[in-house]
Amino acid sequence: MIYDISDNKRRFEMAAALKRLGLTRIQRSAFIGLYSSSIVSDIKNVARKIIDPQTDNVQIYPLTPASYRLRVVIGHEFSETQEMDWGYVV
Amino acid sequence: MIYDISDNKRRFEMAAALKRLGLTRIQRSAFIGLYSSSIVSDIKNVARKIIDPQTDNVQIYPLTPASYRLRVVIGHEFSETQEMDWGYVV
Repeated sequence: MIYDISDNKRRFEMAAALKRLGLTRIQRSAFIGLYSSSIVSDIKNVARKIIDPQTDNVQIYPLTPASYRLRVVIGHEFSETQEMDWGYVV
Repeated sequence: MIYDISDNKRRFEMAAALKRLGLTRIQRSAFIGLYSSSIVSDIKNVARKIIDPQTDNVQIYPLTPASYRLRVVIGHEFSETQEMDWGYVV
């Protein structure tokens, strides 16, 4: 799932909520987790509570195991310390 | 494909290059397009030229038509005018 949230506070809230749901961060604004209809519904509920629907956007893409195996990753892997950097950069 | 690029200049370069490749922007840092091995190789080439591999990250996830149909979108759809806002916000 990927999100586009302009406000720092809402972006941090979203990241924290997704971590509580057990998702794994793969980029500053992208998380991945095991697909189920209940996790999709949890993400929807969390997103609707946190985002401003006038400016923010959340998208969830279910992946098959084959799709996941075919992913391409270029560059630096995400580490949680970047979250702080991001807080300073913005 | 999703990217995590901290530097404004590199982020704009990446977005411009992906548009030139015919991809469609779905979020500030996410593009989508018709899958082929040549487009994946084009994206890899462009990404390797533009990103700083010490700080930036690019990921490509192939989606099946079924996965794409099952996507969930919450909130505001991306429009190109946001690119300017983003430039001011950062």
